[in-house]
Amino acid sequence: MHIILLSGGSGKRLWPLSNDIRSKQFIKIFKTEDGGYESMVQRMYRQIKAVDTDATITVATSKSQISQLRNQIGEEAGISVEPCRRDTFPAIALATAYLHDVQGVSENEPVVVCPVDPYVERDYFEALRDLSCLAQEGEANLTVMGIEPTYPSEKYGYVIPENTDKVSVVRTFKEKPDAETAARYIEQGALWNAGVFAYRIGYVLQKAHELMDFTDYDDLFSKYETVRKISFDYAVAEKEPKIQVMRFAGQWKDMGTWNTLTEAMEEPVIGKGTIGDACENVDIVNELDVPILVMGLKNAVVAASPEGILVTDKEQSSYIKPYVDAMDQQVMFAEKSWGSFQVLDVEKESLTILVTLKPGHRMNYHSHDHRDEVWNVISGSGRTIVDGMEQNVHAGDVITMQAGCRHTIISDTEEIRLIEVQLGKSISVHDKKKYALEE
Amino acid sequence: MHIILLSGGSGKRLWPLSNDIRSKQFIKIFKTEDGGYESMVQRMYRQIKAVDTDATITVATSKSQISQLRNQIGEEAGISVEPCRRDTFPAIALATAYLHDVQGVSENEPVVVCPVDPYVERDYFEALRDLSCLAQEGEANLTVMGIEPTYPSEKYGYVIPENTDKVSVVRTFKEKPDAETAARYIEQGALWNAGVFAYRIGYVLQKAHELMDFTDYDDLFSKYETVRKISFDYAVAEKEPKIQVMRFAGQWKDMGTWNTLTEAMEEPVIGKGTIGDACENVDIVNELDVPILVMGLKNAVVAASPEGILVTDKEQSSYIKPYVDAMDQQVMFAEKSWGSFQVLDVEKESLTILVTLKPGHRMNYHSHDHRDEVWNVISGSGRTIVDGMEQNVHAGDVITMQAGCRHTIISDTEEIRLIEVQLGKSISVHDKKKYALEE
Repeated sequence: MHIILLSGGSGKRLWPLSNDIRSKQFIKIFKTEDGGYESMVQRMYRQIKAVDTDATITVATSKSQISQLRNQIGEEAGISVEPCRRDTFPAIALATAYLHDVQGVSENEPVVVCPVDPYVERDYFEALRDLSCLAQEGEANLTVMGIEPTYPSEKYGYVIPENTDKVSVVRTFKEKPDAETAARYIEQGALWNAGVFAYRIGYVLQKAHELMDFTDYDDLFSKYETVRKISFDYAVAEKEPKIQVMRFAGQWKDMGTWNTLTEAMEEPVIGKGTIGDACENVDIVNELDVPILVMGLKNAVVAASPEGILVTDKEQSSYIKPYVDAMDQQVMFAEKSWGSFQVLDVEKESLTILVTLKPGHRMNYHSHDHRDEVWNVISGSGRTIVDGMEQNVHAGDVITMQAGCRHTIISDTEEIRLIEVQLGKSISVHDKKKYALEE
Repeated sequence: MHIILLSGGSGKRLWPLSNDIRSKQFIKIFKTEDGGYESMVQRMYRQIKAVDTDATITVATSKSQISQLRNQIGEEAGISVEPCRRDTFPAIALATAYLHDVQGVSENEPVVVCPVDPYVERDYFEALRDLSCLAQEGEANLTVMGIEPTYPSEKYGYVIPENTDKVSVVRTFKEKPDAETAARYIEQGALWNAGVFAYRIGYVLQKAHELMDFTDYDDLFSKYETVRKISFDYAVAEKEPKIQVMRFAGQWKDMGTWNTLTEAMEEPVIGKGTIGDACENVDIVNELDVPILVMGLKNAVVAASPEGILVTDKEQSSYIKPYVDAMDQQVMFAEKSWGSFQVLDVEKESLTILVTLKPGHRMNYHSHDHRDEVWNVISGSGRTIVDGMEQNVHAGDVITMQAGCRHTIISDTEEIRLIEVQLGKSISVHDKKKYALEE
């Protein structure tokens, strides 16, 4: 089966664990069998592979997520990079063209599109496989998944089937209603439209050529900024007469708020934390290295990361966005393809960060115009290249680099950690020039 | 007036802002007129000086508090260091001997003893001055302050006066009662015994010689570990027939819990914090550099420091101690006489700290047997001495020191900040040898 995972959005609703560069799908909060934690992306990737080891997975996402995706799911998955945000139809068209033109998948093969962020179990992926088979059979041009509603939600669009069969022709789509209208839809047999659907590749390519002027993947990629923003539902699904819906009654949880996210946690404390005896229904998600103690609270979430600390009533957690929008925050930690960094100290003319370089990885070869840097290697060993000079380094070594000097650090076999001290009057992430490295 | 401030206790009840080495009296949470914040110690010191600029203040405390006291109130106040904890009678006797033998205060002069941690206003210090005058007049050997109770508290001892005059002979002392008994005491006109009293120096010296075998301050200091633990109330006050009580009806708040402490805060947020619209009676005390957001909580305190994060219902905050006792924590920040340090990163074989050296101060000249260190100077300028070699340093300089090497840094006029990276297999605060420095 071919799957396109839509990995979108910056995740202000799950601040402080999500931020402008780390979306909610990368937060590691789901317990794994070996006692560690995995993110939504990692969980879904693992679940797909468990149901179909041969599944090809393509993640449709923005440039800013590539490093984190590679960090979390490795090099195997395909990534269809959206040069900018252009809503779901261009994104799905681009990913479909990527599958066809770059990966060489035939026009007749089916593909399943689904968002990366619902919390689901194995039966969901078995349903995706069924969806793929239905697309392959070709009774309809488009087969959507309809989730059996558990309450009259205002958060989702609805799809109303002709009948109550497992697979039915779609009568109509409905946009997000108010609760009363939602209840009326449900009486009519409506299902939640979860944004999950399957089609044969040729079908979406044809629709794409009808709506956008391009020749192939490379061409669409290069003119992506100029295409019109339009949703897949509006551009395709709502206009397609040959469309069917397959109902799904298994677990499907939207992980959009701290309230819903913590429902999916297996245990109430992730990280260092203590919940006092007088607490009820309290969860702690702590990415800091210091303990959190909660006493006497009910129905609350405490979440802490290097970016900040949230303490919220669970019901209230859905109102977080304006508060986070009002914060003018520096990014304090990030996962990169080569490892990660965390800001330790911010001063007027210096910035100190902890850098972790994964075994077998390297930084870009780069320089800064407006700051000097010092690397204090605190663990591991590897090589640095500074203005073309290579030297072996290990814990205890100190490397000083003046502004303008080209530098990189390379791990051959061991993880390397270093304290990087940046010094300058105008320290900025944008002050960076990259160079090709000839070894 | 001569005042002995009793500055005791480690402050687990106000974790994470107090800890094994920072007691509650050093937390800066009281707003000052210039927009900054001051601690209980600083507030009380300032308040005493405002009422009596000539007051001599002697702080009776343990060795572990000297650095913080000097950091917060400077060099002027006297400090009577208790070599170990021996309850209030030996502590008061030692401080009284210090006043007499070290400071040269005459036996006939009065002295007022009071704890450093109640939250009080100017009228309290005017009352202390009255207390000092009463001791000077000598109608009684001991004059205690009785606080007019506002409720039948179980937390305080009581003193019952003979009559309701401003100053009355004491009929009897009562230990901490249950609430019912407290109510009965109050019906009899009882006052809270706040541990505040005044006497002439000669009186307590005489009591001290009766109960302990010593010649003078130095002698008592040297044999302090061998003296019996006994409270001042038990050893002196409850046995003294010539004793009077002066009533005080002004503000007097015990700052023992987060609940009572936050009542004394002028505004609900100290540090970076946002209280959402749906909150009621929420306070934030944030010593971290990242924001705290609280949504939908009622009657709660959120307190954060480099040691940890507390989220507590206000009423529940008095039950904190066993939870904090159960934590095995490293000290993550400390104020020293020369400045302060904060731990930024802890690894298996390295520790990174931010050091701030106050203008005109220096570290001890010292060495470590089991770790190398690197100083990355990030702001200011001064001098380092490393194995006897002096050199000028400023922001951007890196100084590396092998284990065994003697080193110090000296600020002449500017505050210096540096990132210190410690490297070694067994990093410990106890791995430190100090040396005299000849310049």
